[in-house]
Formats: sequence, C-alpha cells, structure tokens
Amino acid sequence: MTTTLDTPLSSIDDATADLLFREARTVKRFTDEEVTDAEIAAAYDLMRWGPTAMNISPLRYLVVRTPEARRRLTAHLGEGNHAGVLAAPVTLVVAADTAFHRHMDRLAPHMAGIAEHLDGQPDVREHMARMNAALQSGYLLTALRATGLQVGPMGIQDAAGLEADLFDDDAWRALHIVNVGRAPAAEGATYPRAARLEAAEVSRTL
Amino acid sequence: MTTTLDTPLSSIDDATADLLFREARTVKRFTDEEVTDAEIAAAYDLMRWGPTAMNISPLRYLVVRTPEARRRLTAHLGEGNHAGVLAAPVTLVVAADTAFHRHMDRLAPHMAGIAEHLDGQPDVREHMARMNAALQSGYLLTALRATGLQVGPMGIQDAAGLEADLFDDDAWRALHIVNVGRAPAAEGATYPRAARLEAAEVSRTL
Repeated sequence: MTTTLDTPLSSIDDATADLLFREARTVKRFTDEEVTDAEIAAAYDLMRWGPTAMNISPLRYLVVRTPEARRRLTAHLGEGNHAGVLAAPVTLVVAADTAFHRHMDRLAPHMAGIAEHLDGQPDVREHMARMNAALQSGYLLTALRATGLQVGPMGIQDAAGLEADLFDDDAWRALHIVNVGRAPAAEGATYPRAARLEAAEVSRTL
Repeated sequence: MTTTLDTPLSSIDDATADLLFREARTVKRFTDEEVTDAEIAAAYDLMRWGPTAMNISPLRYLVVRTPEARRRLTAHLGEGNHAGVLAAPVTLVVAADTAFHRHMDRLAPHMAGIAEHLDGQPDVREHMARMNAALQSGYLLTALRATGLQVGPMGIQDAAGLEADLFDDDAWRALHIVNVGRAPAAEGATYPRAARLEAAEVSRTL
C-alpha cells in the first residue's frame, strides 16, 4: 500500500513503535553476522527523504569494514571506544558536506542562483551543513533500525585528524560514528536503559 | 507485541516506510482539524527514546497555539513564512537547552561529576546542546509523522529576538519551527517532491 494524500495517514503500530523508538537500544556488542552494503543502502534510501533546510541534504557517510580500515579509524577515537569499533560488523563515519551547494541545482531547482550565493559564504555553509547533517543523523539512526539493524553511536575524539586521514573530500566534516549490526540475545549487549525527561519538563506553552 | 532482544528484529512494512519516509511530505497548508496537546505529547513520548551523546537529551519545545501567540511568533520569522504559521493548527518552536547538565544526575547517573564538569564549560555545552537537539529534531519529525500528523519545518530569521521575546528560560536556543497538522486532500497542500542524492553520491568506502 502506498500512502497518498487521498488516504488518511494513520499512526504506526505498537511493534513498530517499539522497534524504532521505545524498545530500541544503543548496542555495544554485536553478533558476527555481516551487515551488507545493500542493507546500508536500504537505510539511506529511507532516510534521504527526510526534510532539511532548503533540501540541502548534507549528510555523507564513510563505510568502515575491513580490519585495517577500522584500525585506522580507532586512531582518532577515545580509547574506551576502540574495542567496540574493532568488533562491530561495520562502522559508519557520519559527516557533513560543507560543499553541499554544488548539488543545489538538482536539490532545489526552483531557487535560482542559490549555489552562487552560498559559494561566497563558507561560514553559513559550515553551520547549515553541520546542523542539517545532525538532523539527518536522526533520520539515519531511525532508518537503520527500520531496516532491522541496531546501532551504537559514538563520539569522535579527534575529528580534524580523522578528516585529514580518512576523508578524500576536504569539504566533509566528521560528526560522529555509528557501529551497526545485530545485538546478540545474551545479557550485556546493550547499555542499561537510561532515564528520559517527561514532556512537562521539556515543553512550555506560549 | 513488544520487541525484545530475544525476538529477531524485522524491518518495517511498506505502508510504514511510506508514512515515515518515502511518501511523507513537507506540508505548507493544513486542515482546520485541531492538533491536541495529547498528540504532541504522544510524539514526544516516542522521540525521547532516541540516542544522544551521553544521553543529554537537550531538545525542548514551545507550543504556539493561540492567534495572539502566533502573531508574536511571526515577528521573528521571514515574511514568506508568516501566512503558514498564522494558519497552522499548532506550531512548535524547537529549542536546545544549553543547561541540559542540570539533569545529568538523572540522565546519566553512572557518570559521577559530569554535571559539575560541564558547568564550567559553557561553550562545550552550547555546541553539544545544538548538535544533539538537531539530532533529536530528526527523531521528533519522524515521531510526529508516526503519530499520524504532518509537518512543515521552517527556519527562524531572528533566533536571538525570538529567544528574548518568547522563552522564559534564557538557556534555551531556538533552532527552527515546525508547523504541525493534517494535510488536506486538495492539490497544492505540499511542495512538489524535490530530488535527493543517490547513495553512491553521498558515501565512500574506506
């Protein structure tokens, strides 16, 4: 079934709400089962439709799979994160492309001249790229879960060093990494569920 | 059904993939049907489980509903966005709480001393709050759609002015606004679907 504007949109079922949000957990230890390029592409194919400012869609990602590649990656991470990255089936380095404006003729063809306008504003582009790629990271983590995978996001200790060492495009900025795989049934594969704030604590009404 | 680690996770069905990602569209004009506080709280209750760095969960939101409140809001927006905000059933101002560390004893009880450590680092907190609230915005927009609502995110022209005028907590930073409601069946309620980049264009393998 394809949902269209002629079909009233309904909310998702309980099992899906659990899968994507309520029971989904950050995973620190995965099974050995492979995560294929096709699975990652399937998650991207979902997440790419999420909205961004002016449709700039600046999220990029580096797929780190081989033992040699993940050893190179760990050189830029805090020591506490090395073992997790070395053991994960695949790790994505999520990045923001500060040269996103190169694609604006395709992404926003109705905004004539926007690429030229942004070309002279590197600071504006840097801010837009980082904030919108972070927004898209929310779509990406949700989409990986929707694809049946589980995620373990981690921070990067030395982003500049990682960019210089691992990225072949000097317009990419490294935001965070995401270990991706499947959690084993055994205890201890996820962190204990941490608390969240209540709606009344995070919202106000004007 | 509750998905647990003993139950293999499966991917979502096609209708849900359409609802959340593939067919979901940015909406510029909504029906008059009310969006209740309970619906917004239901979306928050989903999105709050999404991961953030150290579980800091800095996203906050201001609910703007009355005609007077939305007139006050439009004073801080570009003119092209006034009509949409005045006509939407409800508008959320999405914010990042730079004083998120006040809650770390509940959000990350295993990280002893982290609140005190962060208290002396306002620049670090500002960066963390903005990036992680942007990440959570991805969860929020997806969760609003999961709740059966549709969204029209917009930028803020004068964020500092909005913060001074509308926020009662001077640690909140305004990121963007989201009109929320239901799209009419009529043509023209959404923008034409804009293109997205292909996986091969946004990814590299190390």
